[in-house]
Amino acid sequence: MPKISLKGLQMPESPIRKLVPYAEIAKKKGHNVYHLNIGQPDIKTPQVALDAVKNANIEVLEYSHSAGFDSYREKLSSYYKNQNLPIDKQDIIITTGGSEALLFALGSTMDSDDEVIIPEPFYANYNGFAVASGVKVVPVISSIETGFALPPIEDFEKLITSKTKAILICNPGNPTGYLYSEDEINQLAKIVKKHDLFLIADEVYREFTYDGFKHNSIMTVDGLENHAIMIDSVSKRFSMCGARIGCIVSKNREVMTAAMKFAQARLSPPTYAQIASEAALDTPQSYFDEVITEYKERRDILIAELNKIEGVQVATPKGAFYCIAKLPIKDANNFAQWLLETYDLDGETIMVAPAAGFYSSPNVGLDEVRIAYVLKKEALVRSVEILKEALIAYNKL
Amino acid sequence: MPKISLKGLQMPESPIRKLVPYAEIAKKKGHNVYHLNIGQPDIKTPQVALDAVKNANIEVLEYSHSAGFDSYREKLSSYYKNQNLPIDKQDIIITTGGSEALLFALGSTMDSDDEVIIPEPFYANYNGFAVASGVKVVPVISSIETGFALPPIEDFEKLITSKTKAILICNPGNPTGYLYSEDEINQLAKIVKKHDLFLIADEVYREFTYDGFKHNSIMTVDGLENHAIMIDSVSKRFSMCGARIGCIVSKNREVMTAAMKFAQARLSPPTYAQIASEAALDTPQSYFDEVITEYKERRDILIAELNKIEGVQVATPKGAFYCIAKLPIKDANNFAQWLLETYDLDGETIMVAPAAGFYSSPNVGLDEVRIAYVLKKEALVRSVEILKEALIAYNKL
Ligand SMILES: Cc1ncc(COP(=O)(O)O)c(C=O)c1O
Ligand SMILES: Cc1ncc(COP(=O)(O)O)c(C=O)c1O
Repeated sequence: MPKISLKGLQMPESPIRKLVPYAEIAKKKGHNVYHLNIGQPDIKTPQVALDAVKNANIEVLEYSHSAGFDSYREKLSSYYKNQNLPIDKQDIIITTGGSEALLFALGSTMDSDDEVIIPEPFYANYNGFAVASGVKVVPVISSIETGFALPPIEDFEKLITSKTKAILICNPGNPTGYLYSEDEINQLAKIVKKHDLFLIADEVYREFTYDGFKHNSIMTVDGLENHAIMIDSVSKRFSMCGARIGCIVSKNREVMTAAMKFAQARLSPPTYAQIASEAALDTPQSYFDEVITEYKERRDILIAELNKIEGVQVATPKGAFYCIAKLPIKDANNFAQWLLETYDLDGETIMVAPAAGFYSSPNVGLDEVRIAYVLKKEALVRSVEILKEALIAYNKL
Repeated sequence: MPKISLKGLQMPESPIRKLVPYAEIAKKKGHNVYHLNIGQPDIKTPQVALDAVKNANIEVLEYSHSAGFDSYREKLSSYYKNQNLPIDKQDIIITTGGSEALLFALGSTMDSDDEVIIPEPFYANYNGFAVASGVKVVPVISSIETGFALPPIEDFEKLITSKTKAILICNPGNPTGYLYSEDEINQLAKIVKKHDLFLIADEVYREFTYDGFKHNSIMTVDGLENHAIMIDSVSKRFSMCGARIGCIVSKNREVMTAAMKFAQARLSPPTYAQIASEAALDTPQSYFDEVITEYKERRDILIAELNKIEGVQVATPKGAFYCIAKLPIKDANNFAQWLLETYDLDGETIMVAPAAGFYSSPNVGLDEVRIAYVLKKEALVRSVEILKEALIAYNKL
């Protein structure tokens, strides 16, 4: 029997994958499971996007241009400019989700065994994209004590080798909810310029910021044009994860030429989804206002309730819709499994994502979980109540 | 300024990319250009697929399962079984086009610097997927003299090294239109078993066979279960290239486990497109009968007309909708450019794909072009008339 690749063996499983069979057990028992583990928003997709697809008059569902619809890229450029991001049509290639944009970014800037430095905890699939691209993730640790702020820039300096090609950040962060300050972005800009590296910023949660905090895009930093590569997506912004539309953005012509060749090889991004995404740009501001208000209220309730539990530590997220909670337990993986397999509070339980999967360093974050606030407020309150009682029961075992 | 990757430099451009500016020139002159260069069918997408999307009641456009809709995989398995391919649901992962399935296949079976043997000429994007995956394409030449039949199996034997992990075939072939016989498939099965290799078969044109020739899928070969990986796509079958739905199929559990991790990293294939693709499976047989009849008539006319031109050699395709034509010229690239930039016959000209881009060996196929018969019959006849006159004019220069 032929052997599969090392890559195939090394590809990480998603942090919650191992829990899925236990969630099945909970379901079989008839338990109601609150899913705090997923990044799939429950918010409605803008009607204008759904209608555009319904009303599209298609006879032959054709490939689009490999860079995406010209009209969509044009309109997206205007959307960015309205947000004071100086992004032209030619700086944009439409991709199949932010996921594909990340693959194009790694492929265009890095070769086999090259290194990318990423503050951890980070979006777990960065590991998968790195393995798929044959490149090495070098983590720099950020901690719950500082609310997951940017690690001291000396920590980055220490890790830079001749193999280092890029620093990758997620802003606002999944799973941390941290939002980098202007000063932090400037520090990153300085170090990538000093060492001639790329700065890749995953800004797919850009619109989700709270408490009046302003998002600082790497695309607004003067003099960073040749270093900056932005990753974007419609998945969360318009609650249309299933569209599979994102984009890679850069002013560096060589990067865009390379990315374009990756784009041509796979022919085109999905056509229906581009119709929806282009139309989604007409979503009225009121939609976003409501969505942000909703997420902010959810966050406030979630954090307030979590803070009431003895021994639980949580960093208040300034953006996105996740937080990391440190629990008074040793092994969050075991706890998460037990919650599904064994525990229930009046027939209900919760599913959380053990945070270890968001770290690339071994044995870090073992007592942490990621909680997504993509559920309604009452469900969040009830979930935290279950967590509280479960922690008591678990620690008595 | 940071340097892009070697990969980014090495990624090949599409064979017709360099011609695009010349096509613009032809357009600016007001010339009508017949596009013989593309693989985008003009056939209508089945109404049942388009209607399914129109009638879908979506409120939140969610991620699907990473392997694709359960219901779609189920139905696809039945579709295959009806065609006597013993493929179960668990043998299928839905991908974003056959393109992504090819990437998953390479990633699951090959590491950096591993080698895949491919009979050339082959689908040009195999080169791109190989560069993206960091693997090396080892071509084995097939020639127009044998109608692009499978090269002698000794030619494969000679190329197998300790780095060889797979043989990749396209059946029926793009750009050759060749359809492998049962004997040829058995020869391939034997050699991959002997050397413990994978056999990856790109069967995206499976339904397009003519003259009563039967398609021989690698999925039907006894004892090949652990070696066979099939690539499929809805793009051509249902003329829905813009959907971006395909699949990777294998009975090898390790391959599927690895491919599934690649699939999880990118979250899910596009949702709208899966709705369309699942519904497309209800397309009545009459649709295919008409389509095949149409393509066969186009092929017959195209080949007959080409054969009338002095000095032109063409292998009659048994499947797909392409053929390679050898022209009485030295440099098809130059000729293709001249056709657009300079030539016209009463205000009309043609765009063809120089075949060199479909070879990985240097300086092969320089006098060949690929012609796709995705145009109506009258357009094909007129195109060949233009080709004939153009060859006379070009050879007088
Ligand atoms: C930080 C981050 N980046 C990228 C993605 C990829 O999203 P998509 O491919 O749906 O655009 C996600 C999805 O959850 C994410 O959380
Ligand atoms: C031989 C072959 N394989 C794969 C593909 C990829 O098609 P898709 O990604 O649209 O399924 C094509 C498209 O032209 C092709 O000709």
